[in-house]
Amino acid sequence: MKQSNLFTKTIKENPKDEKSLNAQLLIRAGFIDKLSSGVYTFLPLGLKVVKNIEKIVRQEMDSIGAQEILMPSLHPKENWEITGRWGVKEMFKIKDEEMGLGWTHEEIITPLMKKHILSSKDLPKYVYQIQAKFRNEPRAKSGLLRGREFLMKDLYSFHETEKDLDDYYEKVKEAYFKVYERCKLKTYLTLASGGTFSEYSHEFQAITSAGEDIIYICENCGLAINKEIKKDVCPNCNNDKFKEEKAIEVGNIFKLKTKYSEPFQMKNTLMGCYGLGITRLMGSIVETYNDEKGIIWPNNVAPFSIHLIDLENSKKAEEIYEILQNQNYEVLYDDRTEKTAGEKFNDCDLIGTPLRIVVSKKTGEDMVEIKKRGEDQTQLINIKELIKNVERLLQ
Amino acid sequence: MKQSNLFTKTIKENPKDEKSLNAQLLIRAGFIDKLSSGVYTFLPLGLKVVKNIEKIVRQEMDSIGAQEILMPSLHPKENWEITGRWGVKEMFKIKDEEMGLGWTHEEIITPLMKKHILSSKDLPKYVYQIQAKFRNEPRAKSGLLRGREFLMKDLYSFHETEKDLDDYYEKVKEAYFKVYERCKLKTYLTLASGGTFSEYSHEFQAITSAGEDIIYICENCGLAINKEIKKDVCPNCNNDKFKEEKAIEVGNIFKLKTKYSEPFQMKNTLMGCYGLGITRLMGSIVETYNDEKGIIWPNNVAPFSIHLIDLENSKKAEEIYEILQNQNYEVLYDDRTEKTAGEKFNDCDLIGTPLRIVVSKKTGEDMVEIKKRGEDQTQLINIKELIKNVERLLQ
Repeated sequence: MKQSNLFTKTIKENPKDEKSLNAQLLIRAGFIDKLSSGVYTFLPLGLKVVKNIEKIVRQEMDSIGAQEILMPSLHPKENWEITGRWGVKEMFKIKDEEMGLGWTHEEIITPLMKKHILSSKDLPKYVYQIQAKFRNEPRAKSGLLRGREFLMKDLYSFHETEKDLDDYYEKVKEAYFKVYERCKLKTYLTLASGGTFSEYSHEFQAITSAGEDIIYICENCGLAINKEIKKDVCPNCNNDKFKEEKAIEVGNIFKLKTKYSEPFQMKNTLMGCYGLGITRLMGSIVETYNDEKGIIWPNNVAPFSIHLIDLENSKKAEEIYEILQNQNYEVLYDDRTEKTAGEKFNDCDLIGTPLRIVVSKKTGEDMVEIKKRGEDQTQLINIKELIKNVERLLQ
Repeated sequence: MKQSNLFTKTIKENPKDEKSLNAQLLIRAGFIDKLSSGVYTFLPLGLKVVKNIEKIVRQEMDSIGAQEILMPSLHPKENWEITGRWGVKEMFKIKDEEMGLGWTHEEIITPLMKKHILSSKDLPKYVYQIQAKFRNEPRAKSGLLRGREFLMKDLYSFHETEKDLDDYYEKVKEAYFKVYERCKLKTYLTLASGGTFSEYSHEFQAITSAGEDIIYICENCGLAINKEIKKDVCPNCNNDKFKEEKAIEVGNIFKLKTKYSEPFQMKNTLMGCYGLGITRLMGSIVETYNDEKGIIWPNNVAPFSIHLIDLENSKKAEEIYEILQNQNYEVLYDDRTEKTAGEKFNDCDLIGTPLRIVVSKKTGEDMVEIKKRGEDQTQLINIKELIKNVERLLQ
């Protein structure tokens, strides 16, 4: 994409009404715009990151046999009265109406699947969606980490036996770790409260100083335990040495068993539910990968792999743009003529694409300068060897 | 996809609480599920159609230089007070909150673009999104044609001069016609009321007996006129012979000029807005393409191109499934063993994929039976010539 076509502008100063680092950087770099507390617009660069994360999540969900659907946000009161959750504080309610906005979808998916699961022959089934969720959050001050409107992937599974639920639960765990690995987010499987029906549930916690949770990582086996439920020794290996960290929950899986199937009279069916916040994941990546100049995107989720900067307004940059596009690289091409080299470099560092390629008179006819975001060192590369080097540096 | 994995079941009887043909067929065939009046879940087959339509719309919007973003649904009251539209009946309001749900986005996009359009040098700009909209509809009885929650593409353009707005408006018109053509929907450019700022706006009306609008098509020049504003002669060619038709509005484009830029103090900027309902388009296609047996999807939007039906439980069907997938055809493979041939054929006609391929003992080792949905004639084809014939029949 030519940067002269991109309508967003970068901002030098931090927005005054944002305290979280992820929101500050994402707003300054033109990825998101704040509409109100915890409510953001995803601008072209931001939507590209969202779509990259969604693609990874879809691939991993599909790989464990889950089928994608899309449920509504407008929920009738009746469904929520059946489970006794109409009164929960999280739900935005429509004025004068018997409806609320979905902040989770057990009350919708359970009666839906009841229509299609007619006997145990129809089990197991796995269904997910990626969709906007709404939560009445009194303190939405953490940018994309805690929104009043946010994108979430929610998967629900339906089983005949506990063994089958247990087996699928382990598969989801693996799929979640693959998602975080592809997003370059180091996460810890963390024991958390299991509510009424299980001893524990599992959270996936990513270490970040902006995190709202405290977790204790067992120094022996690597399992983490949420502060809420921590006892003296690790329930997995009985070790008593832990490392305390601030962390953000980027996923949450739960054996619901009959908690929702029973009130909806869905007989002999055990359920699991598995949440993963798409936009929260994006915020967590920004909290993890940044420096004083801006964001440092991992290549798998970056809006572009390469930021091509033209400092000489010649055909050479145009040619390189074409060469890179022909190799299917996603390139942001800074073709703006009214900006100084300094302004272009600052924008590039703030936006944070993995590779920067600079075309200038300084380097000579056949050469370009190439630099990895987050590293100081630049290299002079012959254009003929460009693709080979880009490939190597993006690995 | 193997049909044994698809969790949805077809339904023989029409749902009692749905009068519209599109909802009846889409529910019976397992494309959508009704949650409440005008509020539907998109099941795996339905979501595939939505994604196909979205892809076409995105391609046509990108081709006219528009950039995709994603705006929130939760809107602060302040924005709507600036334009005096907080009180409109369409808006769902959140109880005890100063927020409403977006049924259109002028109040959000205008202040957003104001931050990025700092001078006339930054014009023109074109921005769109595909997103869930909410409308407080008292009479949501037409299935996907009139929802309380629905998917919409909305494009907004920003210009320095009227000439530039006019030129872009014509480009959008062309792009819209391309979308409808690719969706095989015959639409008429229709003059409608222009509101305060223009003499006319333009609607795109598709002829269907389920339509809520009456349009008059000029028998001379082909321009249509909405009944609301019809006078004696065609404003385009002065002809006075018209054909009256029931139609559904599947798009709507509007020169807003300064209607929204002025209240938000965005100086010297003219605006256009361009709506296209994704799920309404899906409903309109179903209203247009069906017979007594079910839906007849145009290939471009069909959930699958081919329904492969195995009647002999042999390796032959499995092999053909692989051959078709290797050629990148989207195939629904009815591998269910507990269903009769009649049940499989009924499901196939109801779901409505463009081609049906039947593998049975009757046809002999090297042959399959192939049939186009909506046509009676079947052909016996040698497997070696299958791809060639599939290609031909899908054209």
